[in-house]
This record gives sequence, structure tokens and C-alpha cells, in this order.
Amino acid sequence: MFVILVYDTAAERNPKVLKTCRKYLHWTQRSVFQGELSPAQYRALMSTLTAAIDPAYDSIVTYTTRSPDLVETSVLGVSLGGPGDIL
Amino acid sequence: MFVILVYDTAAERNPKVLKTCRKYLHWTQRSVFQGELSPAQYRALMSTLTAAIDPAYDSIVTYTTRSPDLVETSVLGVSLGGPGDIL
Repeated sequence: MFVILVYDTAAERNPKVLKTCRKYLHWTQRSVFQGELSPAQYRALMSTLTAAIDPAYDSIVTYTTRSPDLVETSVLGVSLGGPGDIL
Repeated sequence: MFVILVYDTAAERNPKVLKTCRKYLHWTQRSVFQGELSPAQYRALMSTLTAAIDPAYDSIVTYTTRSPDLVETSVLGVSLGGPGDIL
């Protein structure tokens, strides 16, 4: 499955969230990661993030599709994390 | 088409970028918008944003699918912009 993840977490929890996201996904842009995961990897990612965040304050949104082929990516301006290299 | 848009633009250009995104999409989370657009609306959005940003400094990434049905949205923690209300 193809995963796009955007996070909005408190500064003190960012290092753990970033470390977890980097383990599973590629950095795309400020607060955005993306990548292909197996369902088991996706569950592990979500489980680790659930334990890392304060659910009353932080927010993490994931958008998943069955395949990256279903998603078209366009970049205006600077291609920071180089999604063009990934897709 | 279903559009997820993430932006990373300089503070002085944020108001124009935000105003443009709000005109076409729903706010999801810090620096993230989403919504359904016609191809013509999508072209108008991208054209307005292209004129609004500094392409040497700013970055806007869009992910599009043909239908929102192809995308599953999950939220951990706070549902800021309420994507659940939109999808």
C-alpha cells in the first residue's frame, strides 16, 4: 500500500515521531512523509505513532491507496524530499 | 478528482497561498488541504499558486487520485480539520 503521512505534533514529541516516520517512510516536505508499506508495516507504524503522541493534542493523518499507481504527484517550486525519485 | 495539497512556503507568502487553497479545498491540518475538484478547478488552483509562490524557495506538493473512494484516510489523535466530515 502507498502511504502519505502528515503530522502536527508538539515540538517535544517531534523527534520520536520523526524517527518513527523515517524508519518506515521517505521524507517529502516539512511534516510530510510518503512511501510503500506492507499492511503489517503500516500497522506497526501506526501502533508506534499511537504510543508516541498525545492524542489530546497531536494530530497525524494518513492517506493510503492500494498502489502508488493510483496517485499522481505534482510539485510546484522546490522538490524538497524528491517525491519524483520515489514514485 | 480528489486532491491532497501540502505547502511549505515562506511566511510572507502564506496568506496568499492559504487564501487560494481555501477557495478550492478544505483545510485538513497545519499546511494540508484536501478536496474534490474538477480538472478545470485543479488547473486554476495550480495556476494561481504558481503565480503566488517563489519557485526557488517555496514548495507545494499535490497528490491526486481520480476519486476520493481510492483513498482511505486515518487520523491519530486530534482530527483538526475534520477530514472525516469531508470524506
